[in-house]
Order: sequence, then structure tokens, then C-alpha cells
Amino acid sequence: MKAEEAILTRRSTRVYAETEVEQEKLERVIEAGRMAPSGGNSQTTHFIVIRNEKVLEELARLVKQEFSKMEETPGMYRSMAAAIRRSKEKVYVFHYNAPVLILTANQIEYGNNIADCACALENMMIEANALDLGTCWVNQLKWLNENEIITEYLRTIGLNEGERVYGALSVGYAKGGLPDRNPLPRTGNVVTWVD
Amino acid sequence: MKAEEAILTRRSTRVYAETEVEQEKLERVIEAGRMAPSGGNSQTTHFIVIRNEKVLEELARLVKQEFSKMEETPGMYRSMAAAIRRSKEKVYVFHYNAPVLILTANQIEYGNNIADCACALENMMIEANALDLGTCWVNQLKWLNENEIITEYLRTIGLNEGERVYGALSVGYAKGGLPDRNPLPRTGNVVTWVD
Repeated sequence: MKAEEAILTRRSTRVYAETEVEQEKLERVIEAGRMAPSGGNSQTTHFIVIRNEKVLEELARLVKQEFSKMEETPGMYRSMAAAIRRSKEKVYVFHYNAPVLILTANQIEYGNNIADCACALENMMIEANALDLGTCWVNQLKWLNENEIITEYLRTIGLNEGERVYGALSVGYAKGGLPDRNPLPRTGNVVTWVD
Repeated sequence: MKAEEAILTRRSTRVYAETEVEQEKLERVIEAGRMAPSGGNSQTTHFIVIRNEKVLEELARLVKQEFSKMEETPGMYRSMAAAIRRSKEKVYVFHYNAPVLILTANQIEYGNNIADCACALENMMIEANALDLGTCWVNQLKWLNENEIITEYLRTIGLNEGERVYGALSVGYAKGGLPDRNPLPRTGNVVTWVD
């Protein structure tokens, strides 16, 4: 798929088939992330690729548990408030039950940590779309990246000292096969020309 | 150009030809940025596209002036320290004299501001590469996004109240024609598999 088409047709996938993602495709998606630029060529993004079902289940359980302890506050980031509200309900699975969840972590002390992780995630979204895979940006582990219980668990699966998760990506085949490629219209994202 | 090729061959361009960027190509680059995902579909990224030479010159003068007032501190982000050091020298042009500079601004109070701008910038880099244009991530206006003199000037070219610049992109033809498409090897950006 052409670059422009892959960019313009990318849309979030939130309902996944159980179909496994082929190893070769997944490696190409990750390589696209690794090739994203980094501040001063730091290359400190750490990709933690979770396919183990038990780990995904345990992570989903902990995320629900920790969000359900929190309360919404006025002016809180809307999507985070929704995560808290929904975690207090019976079922809440933050990663949409996707078969793969890729965490992007980076150094706490590094000034470009969020931006570098975002560039890597965007590259992976584009490449996945080109390979007929669906993705969705997952922010919950960023919102909880100072939570001790979550951090302690992430340490057991490879998060290093001095690192935090600044974003994540669910990856898999969309339920029904191909991802929805009709993005929502852009009414915002305004452009100002200075000529 | 295929999506994967555009992603894997993107490299920063820091020396630009004076050749103008075609309006149609520039619009396609910006549209790629506008189609990036945003937290909760906020679409609050504001693209300020500067082609006016006088504005670029004045901005470059102000950036040099403001950095040259600052001092390096221990543990400071390396690239920012370099910007300060170089601004104290005779010549320092933060945007590499590219014919186009695209600022991505977003709401100060919005939790996903840096990440959304980064995704938009990454999309624009990929699309530009596919169109044989060179780009380079420009961080100086992010580092100075609380500086009053810079902010006051940016207000005169369209930055709104409540917005800050979280990243920028120089765009143009690389000196000599095509951009260098031999990215630096990725020795970092480590992958941990959790199977």
C-alpha cells in the first residue's frame, strides 16, 4: 500500500478477531516503530511486545483494579475520566482484547520521551494499516505510569529501572477481517498559513 | 512510494535547496498531519505553516537571541544544551534555512498535546519522504514555548491564547535534490518479547 493511502485510511480498531498476527507481519510493524526518529538520535524507546494471554489478562485485571480506586476530577482528561468510570463497572478491558499489545517505554529523565514514543507508535499504526492489521492507541498505561502496583508488575515483564510507559498500541486483525478505513472527518486540526 | 519504504528510508534533512515546495505537495504533507490520530478524537492540533521569508528570519533571530540569554545546566537535554551553546556563536539558524517551517501547536491544558503533535509530525515526515521532500524535526520552539518574547511574536502570526508549540518541522528539497535515504542504524530502540 502506498504511504499516502496508508496514512489517510488509518482508523482505530477497537474490536479484534482472535486470529493470531503472523510473526513476520508483527516484526515489520515493530521495525517501522524502531525506525522512527528520536531526539538527538537517542534511540531509547523500549518496545515491550506482549502476546502472552495470561500476562495480558493480568495486566487488564490490574489496570481495572487501579482505575477503579481513582475518582474523576473536574477538568480531568476526558478519556481518562471514562477509563475510571468504566473500571468501576463489571467489565473493563483496556486493551480491547487484542492479541498483541506493544508498550513503548522510555527514560523518565529524557526530555523527548513522550514525543519519541508517539512517533514510534504512529509509524507502527501506518505500517500495520498497510499490512491489513488494525491498531488502536492505548493510553491507560501512560496514565498509570506512576502507579506502583502497575509498575511493579511491568518490571516482571521487562520494564527497566528509570523507564516509564508513554503509550501503547493494540494490534490484531479487525473482527470481520480488514480494518475500517473510513476515518472520521477532520473538522478540527486547523491550518494557519503564514505567507 | 510504498508505506514501508517511506517509513524505513526517512532520514533527517538539515541542508536545503532554495527550491520552492509546490503548493500541492505541501498541502498533501499537511493533510497527512491532519489525519493523524488524536486523544479522544480531540483534533486540537493547530498547524502554523510559515513560508514568509521575513517571518522565518525574524523567528530565527528571536530564537538565537533568547537561547543566547540562557545557560547550559548539568543534565540538560543534550540537543537543547547544543542550541544554547551554538546561539552564543555568530550564526545560528534553528530551522536550517528550510523554505517551509510547520509549527504544531496544541492546548496547554490538554493531556495528549505532545503526543498528538508528534503523531502529526511523524505523518508529515513520512508523506514528505514519499514525495521526495526532506524534513527535520525542529524542537527549539518547544523548548522555548514558555518564553514570553517568542510567544508574543508567535501570537502575531496566529498562535492562539491557550496554545503552545510542541514541535515543528522544516520542509524543503534537500540540497542536491533527493533526500538522503540511508538512515542511521538502530542500535538502540530495544525490543522485549513477552510470549
